[in-house]
Amino acid sequence: MNGAESLVRTLVAGGVDVCFTNPGTSEMHFVAALDRVEGMRCVLGLFEGVVTGAADGYFRMKGTPASTLLHLGPGLANGLANLHNAKKAHSGIVNIVGQHATYHIGYNAPLTSDIEGLARPMSEWVRTSPDAKSVAADGAAAIAAAKSAPPQIATLILPADTAWNEADGIATVAAPKQQPGFSTEAVEKAAKILHSGGTQNLLLVTGNALTERGLALAQQIAGKTGCKVMGQTYHPRMARGRGRFSIDRIPYVIELALPILKDFKNIVLVEANEPIAFFAYPNKPSELKPAGCEIHRMTAWGGNSIAALEALSDALGAKPSDVKPQALAELTKPTGGLTFATIAQAIACAIPENAIIVDESLTTGRGFFPPTAAAAPHDWLQNMGGSIGFSTPVATGAAVACPDRKVICMVGDGSSMYTIQSLWTQAREGLNILTVVFANRIYQILRGEFDGVGAGAPGKRAMDMLTIDRPTIDFVALAKGMGVEARAVKSAEEFNKALADFVPVKGPHLIEVQM
Amino acid sequence: MNGAESLVRTLVAGGVDVCFTNPGTSEMHFVAALDRVEGMRCVLGLFEGVVTGAADGYFRMKGTPASTLLHLGPGLANGLANLHNAKKAHSGIVNIVGQHATYHIGYNAPLTSDIEGLARPMSEWVRTSPDAKSVAADGAAAIAAAKSAPPQIATLILPADTAWNEADGIATVAAPKQQPGFSTEAVEKAAKILHSGGTQNLLLVTGNALTERGLALAQQIAGKTGCKVMGQTYHPRMARGRGRFSIDRIPYVIELALPILKDFKNIVLVEANEPIAFFAYPNKPSELKPAGCEIHRMTAWGGNSIAALEALSDALGAKPSDVKPQALAELTKPTGGLTFATIAQAIACAIPENAIIVDESLTTGRGFFPPTAAAAPHDWLQNMGGSIGFSTPVATGAAVACPDRKVICMVGDGSSMYTIQSLWTQAREGLNILTVVFANRIYQILRGEFDGVGAGAPGKRAMDMLTIDRPTIDFVALAKGMGVEARAVKSAEEFNKALADFVPVKGPHLIEVQM
Repeated sequence: MNGAESLVRTLVAGGVDVCFTNPGTSEMHFVAALDRVEGMRCVLGLFEGVVTGAADGYFRMKGTPASTLLHLGPGLANGLANLHNAKKAHSGIVNIVGQHATYHIGYNAPLTSDIEGLARPMSEWVRTSPDAKSVAADGAAAIAAAKSAPPQIATLILPADTAWNEADGIATVAAPKQQPGFSTEAVEKAAKILHSGGTQNLLLVTGNALTERGLALAQQIAGKTGCKVMGQTYHPRMARGRGRFSIDRIPYVIELALPILKDFKNIVLVEANEPIAFFAYPNKPSELKPAGCEIHRMTAWGGNSIAALEALSDALGAKPSDVKPQALAELTKPTGGLTFATIAQAIACAIPENAIIVDESLTTGRGFFPPTAAAAPHDWLQNMGGSIGFSTPVATGAAVACPDRKVICMVGDGSSMYTIQSLWTQAREGLNILTVVFANRIYQILRGEFDGVGAGAPGKRAMDMLTIDRPTIDFVALAKGMGVEARAVKSAEEFNKALADFVPVKGPHLIEVQM
Repeated sequence: MNGAESLVRTLVAGGVDVCFTNPGTSEMHFVAALDRVEGMRCVLGLFEGVVTGAADGYFRMKGTPASTLLHLGPGLANGLANLHNAKKAHSGIVNIVGQHATYHIGYNAPLTSDIEGLARPMSEWVRTSPDAKSVAADGAAAIAAAKSAPPQIATLILPADTAWNEADGIATVAAPKQQPGFSTEAVEKAAKILHSGGTQNLLLVTGNALTERGLALAQQIAGKTGCKVMGQTYHPRMARGRGRFSIDRIPYVIELALPILKDFKNIVLVEANEPIAFFAYPNKPSELKPAGCEIHRMTAWGGNSIAALEALSDALGAKPSDVKPQALAELTKPTGGLTFATIAQAIACAIPENAIIVDESLTTGRGFFPPTAAAAPHDWLQNMGGSIGFSTPVATGAAVACPDRKVICMVGDGSSMYTIQSLWTQAREGLNILTVVFANRIYQILRGEFDGVGAGAPGKRAMDMLTIDRPTIDFVALAKGMGVEARAVKSAEEFNKALADFVPVKGPHLIEVQM
């Protein structure tokens, strides 16, 4: 068995049985090993940003890492933006990156580059295998890193000769680090804070606290104590819809966030980060908490927030009967023109039971939360790293992880074009994804940011860098070109009809929402 | 004037008057400055790989750097693969990469990453501006680096507050390093080698030696001494066609390269690298020169090879009358099926006077050189870094640099999909580019590499990672989706017709060659 085969067998034995791939010459022995090893599902992408984003989406839904197969430094580089997003989401991924044979690197052939240097900014774990006999153990160490708590981006660089030379066999993955428990002292302090002060306290949550169980615990704590529960602006995954506790998120726009936060005296963090502005702007604060507000961390990312919330609930004497009912929006199919409101309403009506929503709707979607709180129960995935081109790959990986669930990917037209190649993989694999592109023909978020940074009114040359209306992009043609059935809609009625036609049908579809 | 405006003015004053852009929030002050500064042409790309590749193509044709505008670490990351190709081609580029405001970086907002770490592997020059008053001088230093000999990839990172705070004005670019001359001793030694030995000597050339003048000098030296003149496997730019000295390149395939090189006793390098295999393969050499062959470097990359070749020619007493005429292929339009030979012949017939050919045709194009040697005079650009997705962006930049010349971009279907968004920029700018996609529905080069690395015969699962025929990609639909007129062809006659229809018409077009 050669090094490549020892690695593939180690991955499969270690439970990493999906590989999103865009291989090249230096990865051919890995590809060849696939024929000899049962149990590895390989999913080809036409561009590496699709591959890495898919691994992120897979982890978010499956809770266990997938692998990627990337071609040397440039192949890794093409995948870095979505590895950045995955890292910020604390997703675990095992990247396998080919390298020239050890003895060939010094010749500086065209594809030679500093692969470790490229990997480090977006990986917590980086290693180059020195020889074929080390590959299996290095692969096992990468799996352990990806499965640790919190999970890591692990990048294993595989020189071609370590893939083709004789190896010793497979390696066993060491038991991953135990899931941390929680600090009893931190819970006691949180209980003391929340016990008094009522609405002056904010429980700011993300991570495990956004599972159905975590939200239910937070809801009874809020009912008992009067504290407010909010989410960060963005979350890797959030249980939502009818029957789940609906919480607001801190708005992205600073001017909207500050008044919401201004009266809190205490913020208790459950995995969440302190409230920080996404960007800095002249004469606006970076920190969004009000002056004098105390921050108390109850659990860190990857901590056992369910157990901590149970302990907190017990300490406060909160019970399910403390839950206060929430008023939900009424769901009626919208009519008339396509506005932010009618689009949101149409989507809320169309979300099927147990759907996965991948949200890169940016400006169009800022009002999506209230109506969709009344939709059928679903999971909502967001971009944690801010690098656009996130959603169509993440939807791809989520659909591979959960073939029995409908994935609805909502994306702005500008964002969609970074990784539009996802559609081809969706068609190839018959993935159950409906992509909804909001075609407003402008980087609308940048138009807002232009104002936000105080740059004055954009003139013709500046607007030319913000608009994408010349030529307009025909997403129906693009989808067709990659084998995905698609339709453009111009009214709420057409949008309702397209959703009704596509949502129940398995396989990939696309709707271009012409705004 | 704020820092951003001081930078834009410094760029324009320094002769960097084209900016390929994909901006975000942190770059909005740069975008706003465009309205206030005359003379900067900005070209928007939908994906950063288009932006950086376009800057490479621009430099190759214009000989002077363009700038790019990229959004933080992930935006730079998306552009790295084509920066890798540009760096290996010794193209000069000034990258402007936005960064969070200096005081905001420590808060670890979602888009925070190690931008300098990402930049270094693909940049010779990296700097983060510390404050607004430094931005102009840093920009001038970046321009000087990009214009040095050899040229450099210069990456200037611009924290948002250095862009919006008050600056002192523009900075002047220091005179770039003088173009190196050449070593008289190295030329004398080359003359001594070439004086005797005849066909046992190889003059291996690239860079400036591949201009019309350089080739003419090499041709008379070959005529006088009997030495063989060859090019590397790949070149940034090469003058070709009727009236130019047609030289062979070292084949990519090792088994083809070794017999061609086996009898040489001396290799004189004119800017070229020593002959090295593109990849390592089990039981094949990395070094392609035969045992005992002596290597002598006459000029290094960026050296004054024209002056050196003139001196060498003088030392050898070579004159234009020493030139031996070359037999050229006869150009007749092909008929029948689309084969490598008929495709090559059709293209050779269609190349118009003074065209720019961007070649990422990979396996389909391995036989393109002999027939196109007889075509109308043209320049031929190749991929120096081996990262695919190179050609459509490079064609975009070449067309911006040379609006009066036809650009023909030849690309494999697999390669084209990495940066297919180029088509939109070509439509937006009305660029005079004909893209020819060779749609064989497979990563054919990898099918060959699979054999090359001795991985045996690919089984079903391995072939699934090499083929892209499920679904087939409809490039006519993709082109239409991005505003580019396109046609698919299935025979030599249809291909001839499409070339005849599209080549004379200004603006972007695409032909899908269904093989």
